[in-house]
Amino acid sequence: MIDPWGSSIVDYDKLVNQFGIKDFSELLGKIEDPARLMKRGVIFGHRDFDKLVPLINGKKDFGVMTGMMPSGQMHIGHKMVIDQLKWYFEKGASLSLSIADMESYAARGISFEKAKEIAINEYLANYIALGLDLTADNVNVYLQSQNKTLNDLTFKIAKRVNFNNMQAIYGFNASTNIAHLYVPLVQVADILLPQTEEFGGPKQVVVPVGVDQDPHLRLTRDIAAKLNEEYGFLAPASTYHRFLTGLTGDKMSSSKPNTAIYLNE
Amino acid sequence: MIDPWGSSIVDYDKLVNQFGIKDFSELLGKIEDPARLMKRGVIFGHRDFDKLVPLINGKKDFGVMTGMMPSGQMHIGHKMVIDQLKWYFEKGASLSLSIADMESYAARGISFEKAKEIAINEYLANYIALGLDLTADNVNVYLQSQNKTLNDLTFKIAKRVNFNNMQAIYGFNASTNIAHLYVPLVQVADILLPQTEEFGGPKQVVVPVGVDQDPHLRLTRDIAAKLNEEYGFLAPASTYHRFLTGLTGDKMSSSKPNTAIYLNE
Repeated sequence: MIDPWGSSIVDYDKLVNQFGIKDFSELLGKIEDPARLMKRGVIFGHRDFDKLVPLINGKKDFGVMTGMMPSGQMHIGHKMVIDQLKWYFEKGASLSLSIADMESYAARGISFEKAKEIAINEYLANYIALGLDLTADNVNVYLQSQNKTLNDLTFKIAKRVNFNNMQAIYGFNASTNIAHLYVPLVQVADILLPQTEEFGGPKQVVVPVGVDQDPHLRLTRDIAAKLNEEYGFLAPASTYHRFLTGLTGDKMSSSKPNTAIYLNE
Repeated sequence: MIDPWGSSIVDYDKLVNQFGIKDFSELLGKIEDPARLMKRGVIFGHRDFDKLVPLINGKKDFGVMTGMMPSGQMHIGHKMVIDQLKWYFEKGASLSLSIADMESYAARGISFEKAKEIAINEYLANYIALGLDLTADNVNVYLQSQNKTLNDLTFKIAKRVNFNNMQAIYGFNASTNIAHLYVPLVQVADILLPQTEEFGGPKQVVVPVGVDQDPHLRLTRDIAAKLNEEYGFLAPASTYHRFLTGLTGDKMSSSKPNTAIYLNE
């Protein structure tokens, strides 16, 4: 089991073999002008990225989605995601950027007000400083707690999932609080949001993540299939990058200052 | 265990003895001009109603809260609640009326659009026809799914409750869907909403219910205590009325046509 809230070191080969993540290097030759992190093998795995390749090469309509949990300062691990977003953006992707204030409340007890402040002053400021144009027409930045479409979709998703499912995917137990149990479903809705009517309906979306986020992708792919008839959702594609090993030898984490090199240092 | 979604017959004495519900008849002499259903003993039990009595007698500020799940036609069982609301309204209460579209989606799969239509054409129309002035300043009618304050409060509540709690109170199991698990917390938020800043802050609120709804009250009283420090919430009071025995001998239920006498018959 992979724990998205943990901070441990990963055996990448095992992930590729056991969890159905495919080897990214096999696709590399098919991508015109691949991103630097692809060429260097930092992006080591994917799901369904082969469906994105013709869209990227042909500058066709597709989406890229990412989320940020505003829980501390940004570190150079975050820069890997931003570099990828910039590359997709240059390839013509529309960009959906979720500020995960519901997650930071459920997981860290950070108020919505505080999360918004951290997101604007720390995260969005760095995104802009690193060259991502967040004011472009095809960019949607939003706070989870403020997005009505997202919350309605989350509740619909919640009807298709039970405690057994959440236990199997995330290792939750009966003493997990209900907000923590609910918030992965908000993240599933985050990933599917770019395919809702409000954003032009079903399309291919890719989610570049660290491999610790794969449980969300597996759950989302399952939910997309269940909601396909009603919404026409396509399964989201994903890529997986290696973690920067933190200064302590563990995963670099915003909320553990001794593991991280912060972007403002 | 009492099942709010079941339709079975109740031993009222046992409820008064075992679940901490107090005998209403002991308060009857203290209430000036009591409601007809109080005098007739249809309202048989209460929690903390003694705290309401001086406010009612003195025409002081207090609230009354009720919810309606738009799942079918209204029947004469609903009229008992409306009669009580009218009485409280005459006594100067402010009224909070939740249209439980999130509940009807989670429990019956009714879409928000359909729920709104049923609520307006069937329920609210009957409330008005039976003499309740829903346009008055001190009346707040809302759809759960459309109320941002309610949904934020629900999520905060969800952080204070775990699966064990929900299992103990409602008998949920691991195959209960997450929307069904979440929606009682929306109802807790419904009950506490009249005490939020938006509605003037903490005050005494009474919830007149059938005894099958008592699990929501017990959970809400527990949550009110947990959120007291942050919000100043007072424990809600409640009254319990006997069910009309349905035409089949079971509880009268909107969604079981053969048990009910509908208001438009």
